[in-house]
Amino acid sequence: MWDWLSYNPAMVETRFIIKARWVIPMDAGDPVLEHHAVLVDDGQIKAIVPKTAIPAWAEDWPVIDCAQHALLPGFINLHAHSSMNLLKGYADDVALMPWLHTHIWPAEKRWVSKPFVHDGSLLACAEMLSGGITTFNDMYFFPQSTIEAVKRAGMRAHIGLVVLEFPSNYAATAHEYIRLGTEVRDQYKSESLLSFSFAPHAPYTVSDLTFEQIVTLSEQLNLGIHTHLHETRAEIDQSLEQFGVRPLQRLLSLGAIGPGTVLAHGVHLEPHELETLSRQGAHLAHCPSSNLKLSSGIAPVAAALTAGVNVGLGTDGAASNNRLDLWQEMRTAALLAKVSEQGAAALPAYQALSMATLHGARALGLQDKVGSIEVGKQADLVAVKLDDLNSLPCFDPISHLVYVAGREQVTHTWVDGSLLYQRMPDGQPQFNQIEVEELRSIALQWQLKLQTTAS
Amino acid sequence: MWDWLSYNPAMVETRFIIKARWVIPMDAGDPVLEHHAVLVDDGQIKAIVPKTAIPAWAEDWPVIDCAQHALLPGFINLHAHSSMNLLKGYADDVALMPWLHTHIWPAEKRWVSKPFVHDGSLLACAEMLSGGITTFNDMYFFPQSTIEAVKRAGMRAHIGLVVLEFPSNYAATAHEYIRLGTEVRDQYKSESLLSFSFAPHAPYTVSDLTFEQIVTLSEQLNLGIHTHLHETRAEIDQSLEQFGVRPLQRLLSLGAIGPGTVLAHGVHLEPHELETLSRQGAHLAHCPSSNLKLSSGIAPVAAALTAGVNVGLGTDGAASNNRLDLWQEMRTAALLAKVSEQGAAALPAYQALSMATLHGARALGLQDKVGSIEVGKQADLVAVKLDDLNSLPCFDPISHLVYVAGREQVTHTWVDGSLLYQRMPDGQPQFNQIEVEELRSIALQWQLKLQTTAS
Repeated sequence: MWDWLSYNPAMVETRFIIKARWVIPMDAGDPVLEHHAVLVDDGQIKAIVPKTAIPAWAEDWPVIDCAQHALLPGFINLHAHSSMNLLKGYADDVALMPWLHTHIWPAEKRWVSKPFVHDGSLLACAEMLSGGITTFNDMYFFPQSTIEAVKRAGMRAHIGLVVLEFPSNYAATAHEYIRLGTEVRDQYKSESLLSFSFAPHAPYTVSDLTFEQIVTLSEQLNLGIHTHLHETRAEIDQSLEQFGVRPLQRLLSLGAIGPGTVLAHGVHLEPHELETLSRQGAHLAHCPSSNLKLSSGIAPVAAALTAGVNVGLGTDGAASNNRLDLWQEMRTAALLAKVSEQGAAALPAYQALSMATLHGARALGLQDKVGSIEVGKQADLVAVKLDDLNSLPCFDPISHLVYVAGREQVTHTWVDGSLLYQRMPDGQPQFNQIEVEELRSIALQWQLKLQTTAS
Repeated sequence: MWDWLSYNPAMVETRFIIKARWVIPMDAGDPVLEHHAVLVDDGQIKAIVPKTAIPAWAEDWPVIDCAQHALLPGFINLHAHSSMNLLKGYADDVALMPWLHTHIWPAEKRWVSKPFVHDGSLLACAEMLSGGITTFNDMYFFPQSTIEAVKRAGMRAHIGLVVLEFPSNYAATAHEYIRLGTEVRDQYKSESLLSFSFAPHAPYTVSDLTFEQIVTLSEQLNLGIHTHLHETRAEIDQSLEQFGVRPLQRLLSLGAIGPGTVLAHGVHLEPHELETLSRQGAHLAHCPSSNLKLSSGIAPVAAALTAGVNVGLGTDGAASNNRLDLWQEMRTAALLAKVSEQGAAALPAYQALSMATLHGARALGLQDKVGSIEVGKQADLVAVKLDDLNSLPCFDPISHLVYVAGREQVTHTWVDGSLLYQRMPDGQPQFNQIEVEELRSIALQWQLKLQTTAS
């Protein structure tokens, strides 16, 4: 057997076998396969077999033995502003409006630039990979700089081409945002790990005319739409005043709510609106930590799932969550649903795990590529060690993954068959293409700069 | 300077200096002392000085250099059923009544014994120490077995002498519970790290007569009272039906609500009840994760604090939380308060940290001994490393401790000046008096037994 203790990601074979105590496929079959092996060749999952039944054609493939681990599909972070990782903890415990007006927007105006976006995104990629996130759905200025960071990290991303009416360091007019976004998509459209959507920021920052242009363009280019929706009551009140309808109704009339639409937050949704989303095939990105921290509210997630809406999980940006950690979001989503739906059986562990994996893939139109461990899908995989003292005893690995485990238990993260992250036996993180000390130094340089404007 | 990398807890000096990037005293002074040192002699804090101003009399003391760490007072877990650690994940996603009747109570009837309580408590002590908890307030059967585990682990505990009307493997009648509890207290009352309270389980499991006896005895023996209160609406409805008053009113009439009383949960409390608690000087143990997971509700914590009630944080037992992790409880408490109080400024980070430390100490009457880093207090201390990639950038260590950090960042836990836990440079946990492999083996043996009755 191959010695994974001396495993060097830089020397990764393209064919290998991962043996695991538990394989959690997240497909339509058994929720847990005990003592199984997943065979990977050229980035793709070739077979899933009992550990003891490795086929003859793979007998000489190297083995990574995850004897105390659960092997999961990589997590999909369905709503992120990755480069805001540089604003982690920049301003906390402040109400939403002063938080935006006094802290976040001035900091963005002063600092946001290509290097800011690149470095913040790279720091976010490192955080996400070390916590088992293999794909993220992003929305921010200078998306090409996020792309460069993603390419360096080697992970999968769905890039939102942000559009706003108001000017920023990135673009001056909605027209320019659209033009720049389209250029970015044209430049990188052949990258196999990248996909794209238009990202009109929110109903309250984008005009009807611009939404209409985006809907037309997204149909022409076969792109999805990623936007914030019904995050706060104030957003809804303002829409009622300005447009006479709630934002969802307005976006529906503009043709922006369909099977390619990912709506972030969806905190304030009435039952008939959940039915609308279900009927239209639109997707929700539930961001429980951020919704709590900014006092936005508790999204009706269990009701949305019951109504047939596809709901994934998002971290939001680090300025309003502080951890890009889907373990935290799974646990918080499951716990919050129980209290808000008045029942401890609401949103059970397996459903939370589905939201972090397959539901996220579906929302991005990537369900044929990733989101579950199935033959023919790409090998976006995460190994999680479940034998530390804090995880004992373990009666059900699914329950432990949601209610006990933390991101620090992730030992391996593969994207497209490449081992991008490994927690080394000495506990240190190692990335395929990111130097930890170099990135730490970059983050500290930004800290020094940003401190000059922090409150 | 002394090399902490080769530091062996078994060889700990009784006099030492901890130098830290940030000392967070949690006293009435500055919230953060940068580049300070804490001098410890014979279990006690002797001085807190700038790193560069070590007094001459301590110049030759060994130094533990926590150059990238925050040094905090040890966390106080204000409501625990430590031995239930063996039932971690035994039954999840089940409504409260079937959870108790079909899963937890039958398992307890079948398995609870002195060895169960000892082993479960020892596992809990290891989990708590590795997450920076130095004191816990316990309530369970066979408290002497919890005490033996606590003594082995070396930590501080406030032992609840449990009393119920109904029989268990531990005692048959309320009278016997009281007798056994009093004997346990008499046997261990000279232990400096132990303190005691009577723990009548809850208003719905303890009669008026028994509460009256406990109130009398607790006055005679100068012990506090630890009980569950207003955890669910059903408890309140039942009390209204049976006694004509809400449980708090009943306990107040029985004389059980005073400055020595710790009330666990307090989910359903009306404003006039918060005023009653404040006036009586009683304390709340807020258990946000457990309250969510069992769908009990969201406690009005920010309102309680505003009303002047002292509120600490508890994990509850591992069967209804699954992590004995006050980092998780701090974060959840802060986030939940923001959404339930409709304001992002509710329960700011420093207040959450106070709840996990000084407020807990006050609730147990230990505020002169522990709960803050002050000269003359006992050296119950925790070092937390804040320079990993996920903690960068760091603008405010207080914010990072609550919103970013996880228990895995705890590197050292001292109780009474003894280094009881250390995360070694290779990432492995090391306890002073607990062998990790032995404890793992014990937990796995219990897992095998318990699996025979798990659903």
